[in-house]
Amino acid sequence: MRVSQVTREGKYAQSSVPRQLVYGTMVYVRQTIVRDASSALARAVCIATRYSAVRRQFGSKKGTLETQVLDYKTQQARLFPLLASAYAFRFVGEWLKWLYMDVMKRLQANDFSTLPEAHACTAGLKSLTTSVTADGIEECRKLCGGHGYLCSSGLPELFAVYIPTCTYEGDNIVLLLQVARHLIKTISNLGSGKKPVGTTSYIGRVEQLMLYHSDVQKVPNPDYPGPEVLLPSAFPCCSARLLVKPLAGDIPCPFSYHLGHFTVVSDLTSHDFAEDWLKPNAVLGAFEARAAKKLVACAQNLSKFTNPEEGFQELSADLVETAVAHCQLIVVSKFIEKLQQDITGKGVKHQIQLLCSIYALSLLHKHLGDFLSTGCITPKQGSLANDLLRSLYSQVRPNAIGLVDAFNYTDHYLGSVLGRYDGDVYPKLYEEAWKDPLNDSVVPDGFQEYIRPMLKQQLRNARL
Amino acid sequence: MRVSQVTREGKYAQSSVPRQLVYGTMVYVRQTIVRDASSALARAVCIATRYSAVRRQFGSKKGTLETQVLDYKTQQARLFPLLASAYAFRFVGEWLKWLYMDVMKRLQANDFSTLPEAHACTAGLKSLTTSVTADGIEECRKLCGGHGYLCSSGLPELFAVYIPTCTYEGDNIVLLLQVARHLIKTISNLGSGKKPVGTTSYIGRVEQLMLYHSDVQKVPNPDYPGPEVLLPSAFPCCSARLLVKPLAGDIPCPFSYHLGHFTVVSDLTSHDFAEDWLKPNAVLGAFEARAAKKLVACAQNLSKFTNPEEGFQELSADLVETAVAHCQLIVVSKFIEKLQQDITGKGVKHQIQLLCSIYALSLLHKHLGDFLSTGCITPKQGSLANDLLRSLYSQVRPNAIGLVDAFNYTDHYLGSVLGRYDGDVYPKLYEEAWKDPLNDSVVPDGFQEYIRPMLKQQLRNARL
Repeated sequence: MRVSQVTREGKYAQSSVPRQLVYGTMVYVRQTIVRDASSALARAVCIATRYSAVRRQFGSKKGTLETQVLDYKTQQARLFPLLASAYAFRFVGEWLKWLYMDVMKRLQANDFSTLPEAHACTAGLKSLTTSVTADGIEECRKLCGGHGYLCSSGLPELFAVYIPTCTYEGDNIVLLLQVARHLIKTISNLGSGKKPVGTTSYIGRVEQLMLYHSDVQKVPNPDYPGPEVLLPSAFPCCSARLLVKPLAGDIPCPFSYHLGHFTVVSDLTSHDFAEDWLKPNAVLGAFEARAAKKLVACAQNLSKFTNPEEGFQELSADLVETAVAHCQLIVVSKFIEKLQQDITGKGVKHQIQLLCSIYALSLLHKHLGDFLSTGCITPKQGSLANDLLRSLYSQVRPNAIGLVDAFNYTDHYLGSVLGRYDGDVYPKLYEEAWKDPLNDSVVPDGFQEYIRPMLKQQLRNARL
Repeated sequence: MRVSQVTREGKYAQSSVPRQLVYGTMVYVRQTIVRDASSALARAVCIATRYSAVRRQFGSKKGTLETQVLDYKTQQARLFPLLASAYAFRFVGEWLKWLYMDVMKRLQANDFSTLPEAHACTAGLKSLTTSVTADGIEECRKLCGGHGYLCSSGLPELFAVYIPTCTYEGDNIVLLLQVARHLIKTISNLGSGKKPVGTTSYIGRVEQLMLYHSDVQKVPNPDYPGPEVLLPSAFPCCSARLLVKPLAGDIPCPFSYHLGHFTVVSDLTSHDFAEDWLKPNAVLGAFEARAAKKLVACAQNLSKFTNPEEGFQELSADLVETAVAHCQLIVVSKFIEKLQQDITGKGVKHQIQLLCSIYALSLLHKHLGDFLSTGCITPKQGSLANDLLRSLYSQVRPNAIGLVDAFNYTDHYLGSVLGRYDGDVYPKLYEEAWKDPLNDSVVPDGFQEYIRPMLKQQLRNARL
């Protein structure tokens, strides 16, 4: 209504205000969707992480308890990248809020220069974060085993309510095609001297990036302080009881921002080498080069078509992959930028650093084909990243509960028996089971007349 | 009960019958799960494919209809690999039925030699097929756009009822670890001269496979007959009306096995080169080498641990990937074996060949990192596979409806407005909407008293 008018007689009148202004609203709505993605994913991850600490299965040695499911590497390899994503999306969401403010300020000053980039950026991030969150919620359900399927786990409803985001406000695949179109336009305009701005500025360095080969290697480095881990007893006021026996007199302080409580102690295991993949520049370089090389390959393939639109249709699956590579680069780079800011709370920054590495390296492992086929990294470097991931998972493990407590969700909001703050899962599950109408009577209505005769193969007696 | 006893007093008595016999039942149950996976995935794919032919969006040129969604490459790249998977799982399911019979025959003759391999095989295939099917149903829902979210699309219920299969009868990740354990055992036993059997027999050629480098290239080959496509009008008794205007006097013959109706016509586009990736041996070689090389890498990493069990825990995420590579090899090889059998119906075999190539090459593209990092293929060969995939999608496109009609599902069984055989989607969607209780009245109960005042910001008048 701000830029167009409909008369009382129902006639539509276009305004003289530039069309671009309507994009402002789109940018606004999409940045809220990104922030919501973070909080939905955080909710699922919180439930799955807490329950994985409560649930024990197998691995019992004479008389000892069985292993906490959270200690299994397969559980960690599925759960911790999602935990890292929840944090990543929160930080990119914060930045998007700034981006929106910046765009609005510029629009009011009739400066439309950053609008196309901001539009592509929010479209792409809406697509990326909602797809990962929708799949992530379902993965968290599976991580809870059979109990995740129960309504009382809170996960089925969260999934059902969340998943339309992949389709509304722009179908996620269609949005990625819009991003790809913007990227192709940006790289095509380089020749005319138009400098890419904001999240596309790396495209300005495309010639340099085409020559990129990662120099990551495993070198001994005695100066490297080594990864730090938190002793569980160092944060008694978190739900540390899920990890260790509570300290005497430990009173939980519910719902405070637990992330402030981290205290750092020296590493429990020995790490006598520096791992280059922990360096932000090593990660950023590889992600930039991958995105740039994929974009150039697409642009080259497109140029073989006489009709560009036909080429765009034909190559659209590749263009979608290129857009994803670009969007992942944005999230990784904003995560790294966040770490350059002041982060208060002793030890908190280090925890976030671990998550940042997990986020980036798990993506690198998942999209290894991209990084290898573009020659950004070697198979050996890919394998180093994978080895490092395992070690990062071990380092996050003692703090996993603290890191989800830090989301500061009340039990009421989580709505999950499995994700209870106090970890008192099994008695409450039993109480929930009593609420099932099937349990109103010992033998459900109709069993004697209809079901029992069938089970006993006395169909003649069944009242069907 | 066949192998153990519980006395009337409640005491458990182990029988003298070999423990292995109980695995027979597991093999039976899991092979039925694989066949069910095929039919659930086929159901979702049938709905999404039919609706993608009905649904039109964008791309209208003056006065013409908009583009059928099924014609978009991004839609094809998501849908057709699932269509191919539905066929692949059907064929591997048929083979598993034979495997079960074979195992039972052997057990009765006290031959336990193939049981561990058969057990690992069914465990792995249960895991692979149910994971792909669960994710595939959700992907099909997204492929139907906003309408896929409606209950009347049939997809939400299909998803909700299907997904527990990923957890029951063995959690899918735990099963893959069992497969990995079997594979590690198989390769460790090579030294003692124990020859791998059945689906693991390729491990016997491990030394040869370690040297494998694909020789796939793009070569002109005038002898190659070129891909064939089916003219839509050649199968009037399928629901060809979704593709083209029906022929005069066209009477649908509902629910017959439509696959028999394919007729082959010569290619519509020019293909003057042979693509090596269409050769079954090129595909099989790459999949065998990938599985073998991943297995050897795991075995080598495991040998670095003094405690093998600790190593198995630590490397479990890699072991899961190795098991997946092995299971995908089984499905690909059984698909190729199926094509060596007689397939009746003119042109049917060619359609199945296309799907086989799509199944294998889309996996190769998805797991490109595996194939590149193990040196099985080069980036150039990976790129050729990707180019070929696009062309295969175009070739499957005219027959897509025929290929899902061939599943022979009744509308009643599909339970989907979007997947109706007659394609009469929109009037029926409207009818379904009338069934929503919200539509019982023009203005829903409570709107005037509670909601309107809030919308009009007259909270004082609201009866809350």
